[in-house]
Amino acid sequence: MSSGATSTGTDSDSSATALVRRIAEGEITASEALEAYLARVDESEETIRAWDHLARDNARKQAEIADKARRQGAPVGALHGVPLGVKDIFDTFDMPTQYGTPLHQGRRPREDAFAVERLRSQGAIMLGKTSTTELATYAPGVTKTRNPHNPEHTPGGSSSGSAAAVAAGHVPAALGTQTNGSVIRPASFCGVWGYKPSFGAISRTGVLRQAPALDQVGVLAATLRDAGLVAQHMMVHDGRDSAMRPRAAPDLQAAADELPPVTPLMAFVKTPVWDQADSETQEAFGELAQALGEAVTEIALPDSFAHIHTMHKTVMEAEIARNYHRDYERGADQLSDSLRSQIERGREVKAIDYIRSIESIGALAAIADEILNDYDAFLTPAAPGTAPHGLENTGSATFCTIWTYLGMPALSIPLMTGSNGLPIGVQLVGARGDDARLFRMANWLVGAVSGG
Amino acid sequence: MSSGATSTGTDSDSSATALVRRIAEGEITASEALEAYLARVDESEETIRAWDHLARDNARKQAEIADKARRQGAPVGALHGVPLGVKDIFDTFDMPTQYGTPLHQGRRPREDAFAVERLRSQGAIMLGKTSTTELATYAPGVTKTRNPHNPEHTPGGSSSGSAAAVAAGHVPAALGTQTNGSVIRPASFCGVWGYKPSFGAISRTGVLRQAPALDQVGVLAATLRDAGLVAQHMMVHDGRDSAMRPRAAPDLQAAADELPPVTPLMAFVKTPVWDQADSETQEAFGELAQALGEAVTEIALPDSFAHIHTMHKTVMEAEIARNYHRDYERGADQLSDSLRSQIERGREVKAIDYIRSIESIGALAAIADEILNDYDAFLTPAAPGTAPHGLENTGSATFCTIWTYLGMPALSIPLMTGSNGLPIGVQLVGARGDDARLFRMANWLVGAVSGG
Repeated sequence: MSSGATSTGTDSDSSATALVRRIAEGEITASEALEAYLARVDESEETIRAWDHLARDNARKQAEIADKARRQGAPVGALHGVPLGVKDIFDTFDMPTQYGTPLHQGRRPREDAFAVERLRSQGAIMLGKTSTTELATYAPGVTKTRNPHNPEHTPGGSSSGSAAAVAAGHVPAALGTQTNGSVIRPASFCGVWGYKPSFGAISRTGVLRQAPALDQVGVLAATLRDAGLVAQHMMVHDGRDSAMRPRAAPDLQAAADELPPVTPLMAFVKTPVWDQADSETQEAFGELAQALGEAVTEIALPDSFAHIHTMHKTVMEAEIARNYHRDYERGADQLSDSLRSQIERGREVKAIDYIRSIESIGALAAIADEILNDYDAFLTPAAPGTAPHGLENTGSATFCTIWTYLGMPALSIPLMTGSNGLPIGVQLVGARGDDARLFRMANWLVGAVSGG
Repeated sequence: MSSGATSTGTDSDSSATALVRRIAEGEITASEALEAYLARVDESEETIRAWDHLARDNARKQAEIADKARRQGAPVGALHGVPLGVKDIFDTFDMPTQYGTPLHQGRRPREDAFAVERLRSQGAIMLGKTSTTELATYAPGVTKTRNPHNPEHTPGGSSSGSAAAVAAGHVPAALGTQTNGSVIRPASFCGVWGYKPSFGAISRTGVLRQAPALDQVGVLAATLRDAGLVAQHMMVHDGRDSAMRPRAAPDLQAAADELPPVTPLMAFVKTPVWDQADSETQEAFGELAQALGEAVTEIALPDSFAHIHTMHKTVMEAEIARNYHRDYERGADQLSDSLRSQIERGREVKAIDYIRSIESIGALAAIADEILNDYDAFLTPAAPGTAPHGLENTGSATFCTIWTYLGMPALSIPLMTGSNGLPIGVQLVGARGDDARLFRMANWLVGAVSGG
């Protein structure tokens, strides 16, 4: 495994940040940009199958409207003309939203999800719906997406299509969600940036409810700056999502170009699931920590963190049983064995165990925040290794579970490559609510690795 | 049963509002006022048993300090010199907090509950801890409080001592809590004002956790104005209570003297438990509604409200099982049969039923709020009748369950008297977050009943 240079946001012509500037300056039209992306889709979509639904004509119309608005001097939004992919569990008023299961084929919502509507209001163009695993859980969905780095390998899940579409250059960024490891893991496997913000930062209104105590909206992007650009424009308060707390949206796009005020100190944590990482990954992270010298200290997580995986499972399965109850009742035979088992286990969870687990979130997150008074971020693998061979399962989310459970902001940074040529991400985790600091740390880390 | 005049806030010398003014103007000292209250305690405490712990000497010291501060020209708080009672489930740094059970006798917290600390910071004097039922549930606690109107009758619970102390004139106001009907019911039985604010308006930090999805801090007071005065100074944001939402505290003391801008319209609701009210109460409310003429319309609650009592039980018993787990493990034999059964039922509740119930709260509360776009308040009994005979149980909370579950602000107004000479309250319920409107409505209602 080798670690190497990646870009946090160089204005390559293909980044969303560059595209917005070039369109604003008249260097390129939104329609021309869209055609360039569509050409890339045509090159590889047959192999990769990132999309459940491609809205070529509708996107072309949106691009024409965007160009006309600009010509007429209308104000342009922060994402004016940027084509995006939308995981097929976000409602869209103009495209189907089918949740990756035969049970919801043909589903046509009437309204956009809140997050999608925010991006459209900034001029983004929704190119289509990217594939999701079955109801955003572990089994591949209706569309079996392949890893752009090697189509015999899984792209990860559940935001499979979003990660693959970004990796293949179909779009500069795409929306994902994470309830266990569904943004960070596919980002790691597909070699793109994955960003799961602090819990409660982005509204889930109009997004499939899987396990609301854990469901979190995220972004897959080719650059850190683009991940920030897209995410920050979704960070608008929505009273209909009771997990949201009113707070000012951070300028993540700017933070992606900034550096910590002093030399940072990261806490390298192997976590209680370290022995599930393959030896190549274990060695690579050991070497990375060593190469970063004084900027990294290895620490052990508190003993109380050892139960998080069990508690996460308790909460997730109980909430899945509640939210997928109707699907189970009307079509258990059309569910995968794994999801059916999850639901059946979830139905048996006792309320006292569920409540105890839910209550632990706040207490353990406070402990994690406390540790991050002394460190700028946790440094840890994004996955146990590179993408597994085969498309039958989407790989392990185990290195994401703790941070998802605690609602801490996390990034998967495409910094490493395994001996099989497939990527694996470096995961950085920040304190809840301090997403901007996490972005500055990631920018610093990329510079340190590239420079060294 | 007869309905008659009550005062919303006449500045009788004994009201907290009057006392603050008189002390500020030098008409009386805090020490003199305290002695007058202590004299009333001496008159009736032996019979009523409202107090688990009376801190006479400590209160005298606090009153001296308050008087000295005033003499020296120090700024005086909004509750300067006002003696208050504190239900014995609020932590107090200078008094025991024993939860009304042998299991916690001798418990001495180190810090004040957030709400208590806020009142002290405004100059209030904590006269002592008022009796609570066993762990704030249904069975009478260690101190068997009696109803001041007739010591052979229960004062109601679980804020038994607070209601009785106010009714007996021991203090102008006292703190209570409500998880089902623990403020409104004893207020009704003891003929005082009971106020349970909107869910999330007052922090529960440092208060016994019974069922956090339902636990709500409230006030028992001799006048509406005093209920507002005490409550509004506890309405300060506390980040440690995740149920709190940042919002400006309403000026309830002022609202208690205001009237609705136009002639109000109340919705008289019999609720799904109407047949549990005794015939005298049913008739009295029918007559009240009729006497108020065009200001009252009887409406039926939506069918979806019929399951609230069952869901409330699911949530309360599951959360009690979780929060009283340690008490059950170490001393089930010292718990009452009824609480032991509650805990045992709660341990068996399924997470999916619990989650479904919790989720229904928001949806049903939104429906209730929607109805209150057309009406100023719901008008309904506070209890099925006057206080039952005997001290073995604290009466039924069933007329409070819906409003507690939905987190709506409620008042019990001491407006009626049964043929046995015991009081019964008229319950007014407002829209979540609109406590000030509820106070204006209550002021209007008292005027309408007195005038008519």
